[in-house]
Amino acid sequence: MRIGVLTSGGDCPGLNAVIRSVVHHGVVDHGDEIVGFLDGWKGMIDGVYRPLGLDDVSGLLTRGGTILGSAREERDKVRAAVPEMAQKLLDWGIDAVIPIGGEGTLTAARMFHEAGVPVVGVPKTIDNDIASTDVTFGFDTAVGVAAEALDRLTTTAESHQRIVIVEVMGRHTGWIALHSGMASGAHAILLPERPFRMAELCERIQARFDRGKKFALVVVAEGAAPVEGDMTFDTGATDIYGHQRFAGAARQLAGELERRIGIEARAVILGHVQRGGVPTAYDRVLATRFGWHAVEAVHAGRFGHMTALRGTDITLVPLAEAVTELKTVPANRIGEAEAVL
Amino acid sequence: MRIGVLTSGGDCPGLNAVIRSVVHHGVVDHGDEIVGFLDGWKGMIDGVYRPLGLDDVSGLLTRGGTILGSAREERDKVRAAVPEMAQKLLDWGIDAVIPIGGEGTLTAARMFHEAGVPVVGVPKTIDNDIASTDVTFGFDTAVGVAAEALDRLTTTAESHQRIVIVEVMGRHTGWIALHSGMASGAHAILLPERPFRMAELCERIQARFDRGKKFALVVVAEGAAPVEGDMTFDTGATDIYGHQRFAGAARQLAGELERRIGIEARAVILGHVQRGGVPTAYDRVLATRFGWHAVEAVHAGRFGHMTALRGTDITLVPLAEAVTELKTVPANRIGEAEAVL
Amino acid sequence: MRIGVLTSGGDCPGLNAVIRSVVHHGVVDHGDEIVGFLDGWKGMIDGVYRPLGLDDVSGLLTRGGTILGSAREERDKVRAAVPEMAQKLLDWGIDAVIPIGGEGTLTAARMFHEAGVPVVGVPKTIDNDIASTDVTFGFDTAVGVAAEALDRLTTTAESHQRIVIVEVMGRHTGWIALHSGMASGAHAILLPERPFRMAELCERIQARFDRGKKFALVVVAEGAAPVEGDMTFDTGATDIYGHQRFAGAARQLAGELERRIGIEARAVILGHVQRGGVPTAYDRVLATRFGWHAVEAVHAGRFGHMTALRGTDITLVPLAEAVTELKTVPANRIGEAEAVL
Amino acid sequence: MRIGVLTSGGDCPGLNAVIRSVVHHGVVDHGDEIVGFLDGWKGMIDGVYRPLGLDDVSGLLTRGGTILGSAREERDKVRAAVPEMAQKLLDWGIDAVIPIGGEGTLTAARMFHEAGVPVVGVPKTIDNDIASTDVTFGFDTAVGVAAEALDRLTTTAESHQRIVIVEVMGRHTGWIALHSGMASGAHAILLPERPFRMAELCERIQARFDRGKKFALVVVAEGAAPVEGDMTFDTGATDIYGHQRFAGAARQLAGELERRIGIEARAVILGHVQRGGVPTAYDRVLATRFGWHAVEAVHAGRFGHMTALRGTDITLVPLAEAVTELKTVPANRIGEAEAVL
Repeated sequence: MRIGVLTSGGDCPGLNAVIRSVVHHGVVDHGDEIVGFLDGWKGMIDGVYRPLGLDDVSGLLTRGGTILGSAREERDKVRAAVPEMAQKLLDWGIDAVIPIGGEGTLTAARMFHEAGVPVVGVPKTIDNDIASTDVTFGFDTAVGVAAEALDRLTTTAESHQRIVIVEVMGRHTGWIALHSGMASGAHAILLPERPFRMAELCERIQARFDRGKKFALVVVAEGAAPVEGDMTFDTGATDIYGHQRFAGAARQLAGELERRIGIEARAVILGHVQRGGVPTAYDRVLATRFGWHAVEAVHAGRFGHMTALRGTDITLVPLAEAVTELKTVPANRIGEAEAVL
Repeated sequence: MRIGVLTSGGDCPGLNAVIRSVVHHGVVDHGDEIVGFLDGWKGMIDGVYRPLGLDDVSGLLTRGGTILGSAREERDKVRAAVPEMAQKLLDWGIDAVIPIGGEGTLTAARMFHEAGVPVVGVPKTIDNDIASTDVTFGFDTAVGVAAEALDRLTTTAESHQRIVIVEVMGRHTGWIALHSGMASGAHAILLPERPFRMAELCERIQARFDRGKKFALVVVAEGAAPVEGDMTFDTGATDIYGHQRFAGAARQLAGELERRIGIEARAVILGHVQRGGVPTAYDRVLATRFGWHAVEAVHAGRFGHMTALRGTDITLVPLAEAVTELKTVPANRIGEAEAVL
Repeated sequence: MRIGVLTSGGDCPGLNAVIRSVVHHGVVDHGDEIVGFLDGWKGMIDGVYRPLGLDDVSGLLTRGGTILGSAREERDKVRAAVPEMAQKLLDWGIDAVIPIGGEGTLTAARMFHEAGVPVVGVPKTIDNDIASTDVTFGFDTAVGVAAEALDRLTTTAESHQRIVIVEVMGRHTGWIALHSGMASGAHAILLPERPFRMAELCERIQARFDRGKKFALVVVAEGAAPVEGDMTFDTGATDIYGHQRFAGAARQLAGELERRIGIEARAVILGHVQRGGVPTAYDRVLATRFGWHAVEAVHAGRFGHMTALRGTDITLVPLAEAVTELKTVPANRIGEAEAVL
Repeated sequence: MRIGVLTSGGDCPGLNAVIRSVVHHGVVDHGDEIVGFLDGWKGMIDGVYRPLGLDDVSGLLTRGGTILGSAREERDKVRAAVPEMAQKLLDWGIDAVIPIGGEGTLTAARMFHEAGVPVVGVPKTIDNDIASTDVTFGFDTAVGVAAEALDRLTTTAESHQRIVIVEVMGRHTGWIALHSGMASGAHAILLPERPFRMAELCERIQARFDRGKKFALVVVAEGAAPVEGDMTFDTGATDIYGHQRFAGAARQLAGELERRIGIEARAVILGHVQRGGVPTAYDRVLATRFGWHAVEAVHAGRFGHMTALRGTDITLVPLAEAVTELKTVPANRIGEAEAVL
């Protein structure tokens, strides 16, 4: 078969590992021909692709980023392309497409599938917010990067008797904040799922210092926000949907804490470091398995599905189920982590 | 309640994180008093323990090893102690025991439980060979350490046109070999679950060099072995049960490969590096969750169980089910990894 | 002898390693008694200290921060304390003081020395800006942390065809920017030592994209600034001396680049991550050697000196020479690095 | 100019960084044409080379190994080639050669130079044993890898009350053992420069356990050996010069220690992991500077020299001086490290 693969959306450690796995399994075990569409859906829609052989994917397991390039989804371009895409792919002799991406990408994948394009999706997000799969590759690396930064900041906070506030990724869900906060023993974790009260945060930190502790570590997801009417952050920015962006609020939070309880506070915004670089072994294995199963699904004709991890097995989930809602941090996970406010 | 905790068996990254979690959750949320038995079951049997307060467990998330010490299980000592243990703990005012350990430890835990000792187990093994739980803490760190070593050796092998053979842990199961081999793109992976043929290994590597490739990476679990009658390794050692130990065979394998196909081969035996040091964020989160749930189980009176990861949830599994057999690498996982011989 | 040790100024990986080394060498080889003053000069001035034995420094090599605490220099407090300090130390039975710190700390050390306090300094700064020593501990760790972040950001920039701007520490000197930029292959490096022109920066990056390259990596020291009249950054902050702080300007630089050349640009401000955590092996060895030689200097009566690395040897340098001027990046080092603007 | 570059001898992190730097500086700043000889001297002697442009060296800073391949020096082949090499290079239009390698490579470089070949050497050795330069790239990475392994093994040794013996590289000199041992707080360090006595080693470790300590960490260079007549190791191997190889003796040392003092001892032989993988930032900067200065030296006609680090500067040293003797660990460095036996 002739299979096209593409990567779309934000960067994520493990993209290259999926591409490599698709090529390896397709070429070696099925005799497939694999082509890579460049720069996300754009490459597919415009028919810009290049052949991918074993040599092209050599050494990719440890390389961050994606050799195919990526781009933000352009919804209008995608929508416009849907009706004629199946025919175009036929014309180009391409039998199936494996898009690797997050919620937006998988939603587009579903639209293409419903219009007759033979698609098998591979879920990708460092945020871990895709329902229907226990976890996605990239998340483990992001948590690892955040936890390492938190470990470093802990020693500094301790030596200088400070509050350190670290803003991690997670605009809509708090998975990275929860896991990196638990891994580093944070004293307060602020999640988008649980609007916080400034007074409660101050109280908790004050109580800690009152017990003789000399520092405090606060992890805040970029999407965390106070309850209505509590306090407001002026982050001077809105996101593409017009919502106020809390991203970047860590500095204001630090200022406010300092003002209210009189203890020096510093903020660090980790930013894109969480999205790049060498994937952890965990993410490389998961990405490799996703790639392998996506090729299998193509050969089994299971279009309109995406790969998913359930327990220790890779299964296939209908795209229609997969992208209906974000996977937020559930109550039982919040209950386990005493640090969540 | 007054809860005793102990660590038993080989070292494993995350032991301290469980201890910390038990103390935190017990003390802060339940008002428990926690004591730590020293040096595994010995400490419990002989009544050697020390109180564990919040200060004692400060900073433990990033510390490898166990502050309680550990020791190999002494079966006879354990067996002799079983009948009177419940009464002794009553005398010492200890309401429950949380042993953290591998198969041997959990088997002993089951014996104590059946003799009336209130026990909740926490499974631990870098080998990932405990059934009833998707994964145990320590495994991710071990795989990460092995993969990092494999990454380093890959560049060396490539520059010098060599075969590199890396022996990783796994006396009875090949999980570390499978995952580190997949993560690093190994060209051959030898597992205890699949006796290999020397001729086939030679052929595969020869074929790779024939295709113009200039190096090969072989990952071998210490428990891997050739099929009966194929070739024999003289590792000059037997294990405590009198079986021949294949551990250390990597060097002989290298020599044999070199002799048969005439390409320079080097062996590295990773050894105990895989068991120590700072746990990955993944293992810290899992260990913390296990500790939290063990304390919950104690308060719920769910004795005779151990904590287990199923998908994304922590559940309780009867010890009687947990330790009946080793979790070996199943056929479908072998099928996914083309490198497994 | 009875020797007091203290750590002062900003956090720096390796402080604990110096403390450990002073205790080890003093106690084991000279039979000294070591005490640690708490929270920098404050602890010495107010006579707040605690004994430091071998057990107190166990495990410190890999621990970031300082077990003695630190604090910013309070110049007035120091000045007021100078006249009577020598007598006070005599009263407390303390024969010598080893302050570990940066330029401010060593300047204070010189004042105390001139007033009769027996002092041997140990230079410390992640910024590498202390003259008279080839390098100080902490710098290698800071460069390593920055380079790792740069490596991660490179893959992301490449996949998304972006300019990434990374702000690293260095308010007055560009050492961290220079070394981390060289280590990661940055395409432009902005140093405090070389005011830059915005037009030139745009031109260089534009030229790179014109050659078909798809990303650019810019490293900027927090103290870097455009030439007078070129463009101005509004960082909304001044430092303690009333100077405008350029720290934080990376975001504005990104915005300006995006506006001028129309390519997406993102900024990351690494911040305090560079100051904390486990020191590199290089820094542990250097810190250990500094501690050893400081104790030797005390026993040799070489007061008023500080330890310094010259080539491969540790030597002693008069404090009077050591703190006269900052060590800036010299012209020949700038010449070697084509990326410096 | 047309400049050839080659890498020879054992693998070393930073080789690719030198190649990249030579190409960058040569092509961009001097308009040179750079070619790479394949597989060490062999490529030069047989005239096997390929052009190296900017694209060929993209991404090399973080890649271990050498894209040019390497090979052990074949002395006879080199000797035979010396007389006609200068003419051959003239015929191929190659104006200068930059060999990157260790003592053997630089000795060959000197021979070629004396026969009229325009050579500028770049010293390389993870062992740090080349005189005339303060340090060579690769050493810092090797020490870092060894120290990380030692850190991991420390926690395991501590939890299980064991002696852990770690054999690191260094057949003739003990630099890696000294630095990694100091960095990790080893309790005994055995160097080739100081033959040890088994009784003294036992005594020191016994004394440590007598003081209540529960583990000991021993670092042994592969070239370390007991004093004549003390005890003998049967390593079953001789090196290429017919000398007995002590490499691999760590296991026997462990057995002997266990036998003599009755404490469980484990050995780990780190092996080639020390030679491969991503170089540290320190090594990348040093390698980059060496490459830059080698190109400068070629253009200045300073043939017969090699680059060297002296303090913070790169200088040129005549090859004739550089390779006369190995740089062993001097007495003052041994004096500083109390752990050296």
